[in-house]
Formats: sequence, structure tokens, C-alpha cells
Amino acid sequence: MAHPQVRLGILGLGTVGQALIALIDEQHGMILERTGIDLIVTKVAVRDLNKQRSVDLAEGSLTTDGMEVVESEYVDLVVELVGGIEPTKTYITRALELGKPVVSANKELLAAHGAELFTAAADGIETSLLFEAAVAGGIPLMRALEQSLLGEPIERVMGIVNGTTNYILSQMSDHGASYADALAEAQRLGFAEADPTADVDGHDAAAKAAIIATVGFGGSVTSSQVAVEGISKITADDIEAARSMGYAIKLLAIVEHVGQPGDLEVAVRVHPAMVPLNHPLASVRDSFNAVFIEGGAVGELMLYGRGAGGRPTGSAVLGDVIEAAVGFVSGRAHARPSVGPATVRPLADLRSAFYVEVKVTDQPGVLATVAGVFGSNNVSIKSMEQRGSKADAHLLFITHEASEGDLAATLTKLAELEDVHNVGSPLRVIES
Amino acid sequence: MAHPQVRLGILGLGTVGQALIALIDEQHGMILERTGIDLIVTKVAVRDLNKQRSVDLAEGSLTTDGMEVVESEYVDLVVELVGGIEPTKTYITRALELGKPVVSANKELLAAHGAELFTAAADGIETSLLFEAAVAGGIPLMRALEQSLLGEPIERVMGIVNGTTNYILSQMSDHGASYADALAEAQRLGFAEADPTADVDGHDAAAKAAIIATVGFGGSVTSSQVAVEGISKITADDIEAARSMGYAIKLLAIVEHVGQPGDLEVAVRVHPAMVPLNHPLASVRDSFNAVFIEGGAVGELMLYGRGAGGRPTGSAVLGDVIEAAVGFVSGRAHARPSVGPATVRPLADLRSAFYVEVKVTDQPGVLATVAGVFGSNNVSIKSMEQRGSKADAHLLFITHEASEGDLAATLTKLAELEDVHNVGSPLRVIES
Repeated sequence: MAHPQVRLGILGLGTVGQALIALIDEQHGMILERTGIDLIVTKVAVRDLNKQRSVDLAEGSLTTDGMEVVESEYVDLVVELVGGIEPTKTYITRALELGKPVVSANKELLAAHGAELFTAAADGIETSLLFEAAVAGGIPLMRALEQSLLGEPIERVMGIVNGTTNYILSQMSDHGASYADALAEAQRLGFAEADPTADVDGHDAAAKAAIIATVGFGGSVTSSQVAVEGISKITADDIEAARSMGYAIKLLAIVEHVGQPGDLEVAVRVHPAMVPLNHPLASVRDSFNAVFIEGGAVGELMLYGRGAGGRPTGSAVLGDVIEAAVGFVSGRAHARPSVGPATVRPLADLRSAFYVEVKVTDQPGVLATVAGVFGSNNVSIKSMEQRGSKADAHLLFITHEASEGDLAATLTKLAELEDVHNVGSPLRVIES
Repeated sequence: MAHPQVRLGILGLGTVGQALIALIDEQHGMILERTGIDLIVTKVAVRDLNKQRSVDLAEGSLTTDGMEVVESEYVDLVVELVGGIEPTKTYITRALELGKPVVSANKELLAAHGAELFTAAADGIETSLLFEAAVAGGIPLMRALEQSLLGEPIERVMGIVNGTTNYILSQMSDHGASYADALAEAQRLGFAEADPTADVDGHDAAAKAAIIATVGFGGSVTSSQVAVEGISKITADDIEAARSMGYAIKLLAIVEHVGQPGDLEVAVRVHPAMVPLNHPLASVRDSFNAVFIEGGAVGELMLYGRGAGGRPTGSAVLGDVIEAAVGFVSGRAHARPSVGPATVRPLADLRSAFYVEVKVTDQPGVLATVAGVFGSNNVSIKSMEQRGSKADAHLLFITHEASEGDLAATLTKLAELEDVHNVGSPLRVIES
């Protein structure tokens, strides 16, 4: 019996593209046996035709023209591993117009134009657009959110979705490294880019938060709507102070359902947070990713694994390729639940517990004055600890849940006090 | 616009059935909005018509006849929450014959007759048979194995898939409870049945291991092919000794690819094992479940959550119901990868590291004699520690990887030695 062949065109032949081709080669027989589909790679778009690569491709399969791959009569399914908004968006839109399923790992594009692309896939020749690899690499998060948890009243998703920053924070926590040294080490090992801005400033995580909100909560959220704070202000002292109080500091992407049941109002943000040491997210170390989901029915759920790297990401891409190929052969597109508009609640209107460090001159009455400022701004104190003394006294506060606005007002007032030398950047605290 | 209605018939109205109906009621509007499907429950089979229940059902929707639900012209999709082999298998087979999708949480049936039921779903009027809730309750494991990881060269899956035994072992570990006390406490809290045999002897976990092997590795394995050992022999002393050596004791369901790549030869077993304390499975406490997957491309992946309970299980059932309903309306059945025959390697031919406790009279030459027995049976010692002295000396050995057969021979020989008073039940050790 002849097996239906599905011919892949791949845009981009970097680490993930090469891993994908190697994996298809290794697993070809197994995929044929389990799905009846003969997957072959026919066309690949690259930037430089002459670069040395680890994969063997047939003569003539390489091109520098992405649109040639998309429109080729020898390509049934397009895998987009280039990244960025354009020309990628044009390529994907064209492939969908032609009824060719698309598998993408492009978080930036999906976070900016996800809902629009979903519509393009559903319109005309209905076809599949899959992107498991765009968020948390090898972790099967998209499928869990979009299918398994489709009936679930999801309350909150908190993710460690950026391996670079988690590696840096782990190094600082486990080895007392400074932020600068930990970043340099991450760069040396290839966990951080030469320009680490997108990772350390939280923008990579923000794109993933937008996709989680859109797919998991069903309301279109773009990365520009995500409140973002990075990790570059975190010091080894912060990490040590957090640990002594029973917390680890993690960069979290947090998507929460806020407002009334039935309303699609969400809060979407990325910031460092203090996570209780006994919380499952606290022990996610090094470059691992994990996504912690709290639902009204399912309770607590966590998915943990490799968020980046050629082979883990290639594995996620291959899972999508197989689903899209099976769908292509049987004329069945991926059934995507509809995505409507969402209201995104501004950061200033959110509530959180906070950690605040205040440096003061240690003299009678100072603590009462400082505590009074919290109280008069509606911020209730949960615990206070003093470190040092005399001119170098630090007061470490953890507050009960308070509004972002009230906390900001508190910090402004504190900074105006004569005996206060410094008010640290506050850290949000996740309650266990 | 009228929305397509999908009418559910439910077999069994216990904790999960009631949770499912409540959840459908809560989430009806959201499901309608995201999928366009109007889910309603029309028929429910129960054992006792007069029992008080927490859910409101329309007059006349209850029956004691399961087949009436399956064959009802008012039922499009059947949810099976009864459990057991018969008459459940007859009901499911009949529903599939009628082209009605089936969602089941029945691990026992799927572990015994999974491949046969998959064929029934694919034959005739092709339709969906989904069973996410059958393994690890609310954790989206089946979808991860069957779809996301379909292209992945999975090497090993190790799961804490029985909440009762994990609760008992956690109580023993965290509070020093005896096995009997921890079991009694689990029974008091409803985590263990009055007759706890299926849980503590490992048979519940064995059924789940068979399903993991079948779905994740693509070769049909039934529960009778799973080597099983329960936790009833584990003592508080074992747990304390394990901890002092850096391990937690967990009941694991382990499915491994053995033999050559391309061959479908697997090892499938359930037994208590010593897991390094820094392994993600070691910190899975109380009645939580977790499944740790090692793949050649994806690396390490762990899914963690609630393995039982009405609402977590109901959530998993509802995810399946929605997928099956969407498929029913559009005439598309769940695309299941094919399952072939598998070779199951016998336990005696497997290799593992082991922990062995030997009670001896502490006198010169004993250790050399004991160590000699290990060596002459091809079991190499990785570490040894002596506890106590004189007539009550315990030698705690951890071996390098050795065959089950060689270890058994070692234990037999050790028991014959004059200065050996007792040889403890060995525990398998997971290498980090």
C-alpha cells in the first residue's frame, strides 16, 4: 500500500530547523508506522546558501526565497522557524490562503497578530495553524490549554517561561553570583544572547504571556498589553533576603482571570516575584521552564520541562507537524476554539502582596513612622524584620494584599521621610 | 443562529459524574461561546433511582438501564463513569457501533481491552474514544503522549499515578508514621478505600502503566503483563534509611523502551523505588500525581497535578467531551495513532540499581563475606554503610546497575550465610 506523502517546506535552518530535520530522519519509520504518513522535507529557505550545516538535503532543496518555499508545488505544509514579524507574517498568511497547514515557533508574531492569523487559518480553505513550540519549548502547554482545559474555569496561570532569566536567577540563588556575573556566565554557556535585553527585560516572557492569555482564556491579548518588569534590578542581597524569609525569586509571566465569572477580563503581567520555597515553581532551576495552572475544577497543575534548545523545541514542532499532516491528508483542520476580545485590567488596578526594603536611621519612633505611612495608604503589614542597626538599619516588610496604586503611593511617601535613606524596588509576593 | 446541540448520556452518577454535570452547568455559556456547541445532559444511568443527589436533572432522564442510555435516540455522545469490565465493555462497544463518541475514565477496561476498543472506534462509523481521565485524573497526560510527543523518541516514563499510596508514603516520610497508621489516616480522610488492596498492592498503578505503554509507546500492553509490587512491606525505617542516603521512596509506574531503536520492546512495571531527593518526582507529596517523561529529543518533562477527586477528574472528562462533541458535529473522529503488538521484557531480564539491607552479627570478616556474595553474583556495590553494631548490625548496600536475576541470586545466597540474620526486601534505586 502506498502511503500518503506530506511534503514539508521549512523556513529557517538554525538550531531548531536542523534539529527538526534530524528528528524527522530518525523517527521517519515510526511516524510512518503509527500514522501512515510519509513525511519528507522538500524545500528549505535559508539566509546563506553556502553555510556548512549538519543536515543532508537533496540537491536543489535550498533557496534564499521564503515565498518560493511557501508557494512551491512540492510543499504541502509550511514550518516557520524564522521568527520576527515580517516577512514572516506575509509568508504564513500566504500559506494559509493556499490551504497549506502552518506550524510556527514564532512567539513574537503570534503575540502580536495571533487572533488575526487564527482567522486566516479558519477562513477560505480551512487549515491548521499550530504553534506548540512558541511558548515553553518542549512543554505541551498549548495543547493542554486549548484542548484538555477547554472546559476548565482557569483562574490563574503562572509561568517560568524564559530559560535565560531562570538560569541567571538560579546562579544568583544557588551560588551567590551577582547579576552581572550570572549574566556573563549565561552568555558564555549560550543560554543568553550577546544582547540579552529581550530576555532580561521580560519582553520574551511578555510575548508568551500574551499567547497564554489568548489561547488559555479565549480573549485576544497582544504583547503590547502586557505589563512588564525585568530582572536587571535584582541583587544577590534581594535573593538572600527572600530566601531567609522563605521565598525564591523567579521571573513570572502571570495571566489571571479577574472580574466576574463570565466576563473576559484578564490581568497579564511579567515581573520578578517572591515564590514560597515550598511552591512547585520555586524548585524549577537552571534553564528549565514550568507553567503552573490553577483552575476551579482541576485544582493545581504544573507542566515542567525544557523551554528552549534545538531538540526540545524540534520535538514540539514535530508533534505539531504530525497533527497538521494527519489533518492535511484527511482534509481536517485543527479545531481551534474561538477567540474573542478581552478586557485587560491595568496594572495599577491589580492587587498583590509586596516585599519592600526600607533603609532607615535606627532611632526611636522610626518604625512607627514608617509603619504609619503603610497604614495611612491602605497597605496592611503582614510581617516586618529589622536587619543591621544604627545608620545602616534595613526594615524588610511583607504586606498583605494591597493595590498597586496604594503601594506606589506608600513608596512615594516613604521616600519623603527624613530618616528614610532608601526605599528598594518592591517585589510582588505570591501567596502559597 | 441556532447552535448545534450535543446530547450527553452518562453512565454512572458517582462523585465524578456529579462533578461533571455541575461543571457543564457552570461552563455551559463559555463552551457555547468558544466552540458553538450547546452541551446538554439528557440521560443518566444510575444504580439507585431514589438516592439523594447534588445535581438537578430533568424528569425522566434517570434510568437504571445503561443500554437504554447508550441506545437512546436522545443521546449523541456517551460518557462512561461506571468502571469495571462488564457490562461496561458491552455498552462502549455498542455506542461505538452506533457511531456515538465515547468518553471513558475506566482504566481497568482500557488496560485490559484498550487496543480492541481502539479498533472498534476506528471501524465502521469511525468515531472518537477518549479517556484522558483514566490515567492521572486531571493531568493532561494522554493528549501529551498521543499528540504532542507522537514524534518523540520516548525513552522512559516514570509516574506517581496512585494518590492513595503517595499519600501514605508522604505521611510516613513527613511525619514518621507507620504504614498501618498512615493507611488508617488515608482511609479516614477518604484517600483510601475500606479495602485498599488495589491501591497499596499496585494494581491500580499497573493498569495505568499498561495504558501509558500502549498510548505512549504504541504497542499494546495489558495490565496482566505488568510486573507489580506494592508498598505494604515498606517500613518507617526503610524511609528513614533512604532519606539519610539522599532518597525518597515512591511507588512508581515505569514504562521503558528497551532493546534496539525501532523495535517495540518495552519493560513495564510498578514497584516502590528510591528516588534521589533532588529529582522532581521526590517532591511530589500527599495525594498529588506526577508523570516524568524522558525523551531523546525533548529531554526531561514532568506533568504534575491532581490524580483523583471529582472535580479534577470531571475537568479531564469535560475536556474530552468537548473534543468529542466538536468532532461529532463536524463529522471528524479523534485521530488516534495506530497501536501494534509490543514485546514486554520479563522483569527478571531487567537491570536496575538496588538498595539491600542485611542484618548481620558484627564480627571480623562478615563484611568481606557479604560483599563477596554480591561480587560472585555479578552485582557490583556502589556504596555501603553500617548501622548499629554487635549482634544488631545492619549493612545498607546500594549497588550499581545489576540484573534482577543476579540480584535475586545474591539475596538467596546471602540468606544462607550463618552470620546473616535477615535480608531485607530490596528496593530499586532510580539513578539521578
